[in-house]
Amino acid sequence: MLLYNNPASGNCYKVRLLAAQLGLDLELHDLDVVDRSNRPAVIGQLTPVLRVPVLVLDDGRALFESNAIIDYLAEGTPYLPQDRYERQQVLAWQFFEQYEIEPNLAVARFWRLFGIEQPDSAWQQKREAGRRGLDALERGLEGRDFLVADRYSVADISLYGYTHVAAEGGFDLAPYPAIRAWLARVAAQPGHIAITS
Amino acid sequence: MLLYNNPASGNCYKVRLLAAQLGLDLELHDLDVVDRSNRPAVIGQLTPVLRVPVLVLDDGRALFESNAIIDYLAEGTPYLPQDRYERQQVLAWQFFEQYEIEPNLAVARFWRLFGIEQPDSAWQQKREAGRRGLDALERGLEGRDFLVADRYSVADISLYGYTHVAAEGGFDLAPYPAIRAWLARVAAQPGHIAITS
Repeated sequence: MLLYNNPASGNCYKVRLLAAQLGLDLELHDLDVVDRSNRPAVIGQLTPVLRVPVLVLDDGRALFESNAIIDYLAEGTPYLPQDRYERQQVLAWQFFEQYEIEPNLAVARFWRLFGIEQPDSAWQQKREAGRRGLDALERGLEGRDFLVADRYSVADISLYGYTHVAAEGGFDLAPYPAIRAWLARVAAQPGHIAITS
Repeated sequence: MLLYNNPASGNCYKVRLLAAQLGLDLELHDLDVVDRSNRPAVIGQLTPVLRVPVLVLDDGRALFESNAIIDYLAEGTPYLPQDRYERQQVLAWQFFEQYEIEPNLAVARFWRLFGIEQPDSAWQQKREAGRRGLDALERGLEGRDFLVADRYSVADISLYGYTHVAAEGGFDLAPYPAIRAWLARVAAQPGHIAITS
């Protein structure tokens, strides 16, 4: 399978991490995340949204959106529950991730990593909205080892993607003990790889 | 089933619309979307994210995140495909909706409907990001009757929720002929109800 990828992207890392844990081979094709001018030519036929990751199956069909890609790959494996209610909880956490974590933690990290200047008001908005997201994640993890059914699943992979590099966006996880303990449990899972690997 | 709801929310409307089409009875409990001070007391035990909709099943278990709720309700019905690749496409569109449509179209509409003042730069950012989302949706709908497998599904319900009231947030759909034709097809589905009903 071919993954249109960026090494710094937490969204792409979700796919690389699950693929490593499932023992799937990925051919990586890296795209720039700052200069996106070649996106229509390179992935315009594969995805309407022009973002990475895009996964191309061996039969040529393409998958877009990181959380939807890993749910597809995890189907029928221990990483995606079979129970209908547990599957709903997995999806709920993944939608939350795309709505409250990624747009704040990932964007602030992107601005920092690539030196993209923003007005103070934009930084402040990201910091406040990101903290609201982290507050919700902390509440969800209190008293739990993992997000859903007390087992490691794609929900944990989705939330781990950007939460574990929150500091690179300027977020301090010291006030979040449940998140910090959960990050360590996720990193200790068999087959775990780092975002930089 | 009990739905914590707001009548103006497109996210809540998705659940009411699918429930109407499935013939499911919902008891509605409306929450304010401006004054959210009672959220921890009313829904704090049901959802970590403190947003509506929240659906409480007859056995007391609670579901959060609009798209995850409708996927749960649609399981085993014609509104959610069985095919693994088609299910991936449904999810991809739904994640796109929460990332590129809802944060722009819904938030701009919320500011307008409730008279919430914002600096020009914030309006401009919403307008530009919202147009990028609409551009992607238009590309995805070109040559198609519905988003996935040419059949009406929860993917259409998710995208319809805020796109059909785009004008209330100041977005002009005139440049988007595929979107406009698709909106009319969705509104013509059996059992369709309006957001105001």
